[in-house]
Amino acid sequence: MKAWSIEKPGSREVLKQIDVDKPEPQTGELLIKVKAAGINRTDTLTRQNAALKKPYPILGVEVSGVVDSNQSTDSKLNAGTRVCGLVNHGGYGEYVVMRADRAMILPDELSFKEGAAIPEVFLTAYQTIYWLGELKNEEKILIHAAGSGVGTAAIQLAKQLSQATIFATAGKPEKQEMARKLGASVTINYKEESFDERINDVTKGTGVDVILDFVGASYWPMNLASCAADARWVLIGMLGGSEVERVSLSELMRKRIALKGTLLTPRSDEYKASLSREFMQIAMPLFKEKKLQPIIHTVLPFEKLPEAHRIMENDENIGKIIIKMNQ
Amino acid sequence: MKAWSIEKPGSREVLKQIDVDKPEPQTGELLIKVKAAGINRTDTLTRQNAALKKPYPILGVEVSGVVDSNQSTDSKLNAGTRVCGLVNHGGYGEYVVMRADRAMILPDELSFKEGAAIPEVFLTAYQTIYWLGELKNEEKILIHAAGSGVGTAAIQLAKQLSQATIFATAGKPEKQEMARKLGASVTINYKEESFDERINDVTKGTGVDVILDFVGASYWPMNLASCAADARWVLIGMLGGSEVERVSLSELMRKRIALKGTLLTPRSDEYKASLSREFMQIAMPLFKEKKLQPIIHTVLPFEKLPEAHRIMENDENIGKIIIKMNQ
Repeated sequence: MKAWSIEKPGSREVLKQIDVDKPEPQTGELLIKVKAAGINRTDTLTRQNAALKKPYPILGVEVSGVVDSNQSTDSKLNAGTRVCGLVNHGGYGEYVVMRADRAMILPDELSFKEGAAIPEVFLTAYQTIYWLGELKNEEKILIHAAGSGVGTAAIQLAKQLSQATIFATAGKPEKQEMARKLGASVTINYKEESFDERINDVTKGTGVDVILDFVGASYWPMNLASCAADARWVLIGMLGGSEVERVSLSELMRKRIALKGTLLTPRSDEYKASLSREFMQIAMPLFKEKKLQPIIHTVLPFEKLPEAHRIMENDENIGKIIIKMNQ
Repeated sequence: MKAWSIEKPGSREVLKQIDVDKPEPQTGELLIKVKAAGINRTDTLTRQNAALKKPYPILGVEVSGVVDSNQSTDSKLNAGTRVCGLVNHGGYGEYVVMRADRAMILPDELSFKEGAAIPEVFLTAYQTIYWLGELKNEEKILIHAAGSGVGTAAIQLAKQLSQATIFATAGKPEKQEMARKLGASVTINYKEESFDERINDVTKGTGVDVILDFVGASYWPMNLASCAADARWVLIGMLGGSEVERVSLSELMRKRIALKGTLLTPRSDEYKASLSREFMQIAMPLFKEKKLQPIIHTVLPFEKLPEAHRIMENDENIGKIIIKMNQ
């Protein structure tokens, strides 16, 4: 089968199409005939990881497709079933092995392109908002990077599942527009105004209950100032650097803030299985009703993978970049 | 009735015995004839709080005593019932008003002195270990300030309720000895060795699941180095300062640490009620069986309150300082 791996760790030029045997599913696993795969930042980071040793992996951590062979005891996942979900690697190939307890059945109303745009961003958003952020009905949430994949998923989930009041930051007017369309109450262009001052104004000084923070160091003082008492501040990215110069613990204590660092990719298999199951039950039905929608920036053919990496690394996309298999 | 208030905010000399009317319980409250009251750091901080305005309060936030009048619908708390619990202020008086939903029935096996030594430290320890730290059976916990009131309570709870492996730090051999007696597996004199290196040795580099941190800034790098993946790090004091220089968010994310700031005193009435109820059900029976014990440093008569504040401010105590009423 055809797949994308790397020549050696490095920039986009190292991406290399290879021809390899189909992977073999073990007990508890599915072999999936891949129809579409999502591009993620973890893929570009893996590609550059100088610590990687040969044999280099097939990249890609999320796919949609059709079950080709079911080696699990779950009869709902027999051959022919349309599914989507996370894989540990190997998503950029014609076939991939997926743990059955992580597969989400793809409703007929959704295309394969849409299915490949759901797992990573929606599961990450769901995990951070609910498992870590513990967002309750009608609470206030601040979502940074509102135009990103996780940002657009988070706005929709917070709106549809919790009727939250959503503050969203983005650096471009079209991203603000998208955030409003998806359910944000207040959108803030961080290049033009201080988001903490705006939040302070709108909430009359009470602040937000949950923050999804992809930015880290450069937003630290403003995020701290935006927190309500008992706020949950979830740290899922460091686009603005990782070293904070001065941290005041007394503010964290006074406001009783819970600051939670997280990453989805290195979580255990059990964690991902349990997250996928809960998401499939609670959120998947809302995709059928079109209350939730995967946001897709562009769909490229399998052969154009380097171009997909280029778009992600240049930050040109609002929503997901998808590669489509010709099979 | 007699009570202790202050002349004006300031050092121990401002403490002043006054003669005032008994307080009047409202609906949902108890009037308690106080038998003993515990001394807490929040009392000495309130005493010094320059922002306090007249009329100055009667100090004291925890008592044991006998119900004198029950204005609640809870018939288990009728006049004559022995109770202990938290009050918002007024503990250093012959009578005090307590919300009924916060009163814990004092088993006959425990004296009033012992009852007054339980609420603040054991509820704080319980809240931080279980509600915030989410300690699970047989996990590893690091407890700093092992000789303090909350420290001695925390060691006992973690041992008796969760069979935890307990690492305890203290600056004096007699405090280490006490920590071992109460259930600590490893005690570390922080003046003689780096606790993070010792923890790293003993856990073979895996670290601890929960940290109770009373120290803050000066322990930051060592606490961070002591955290296991998915650790809960509960910040409940700043004895070592509140300003941390250079915080690495990438470590918090990589280890998926939850850092939670907390304080018990400013929590809502509902929070304290719910915490008191859960503690009474789960932990109070273990005091009857002598599996848990209040640790008392000294008991002084009501008139010696300034001496009680002196001992606390000079950090001379291992365990609680109690004042006893002559009634």
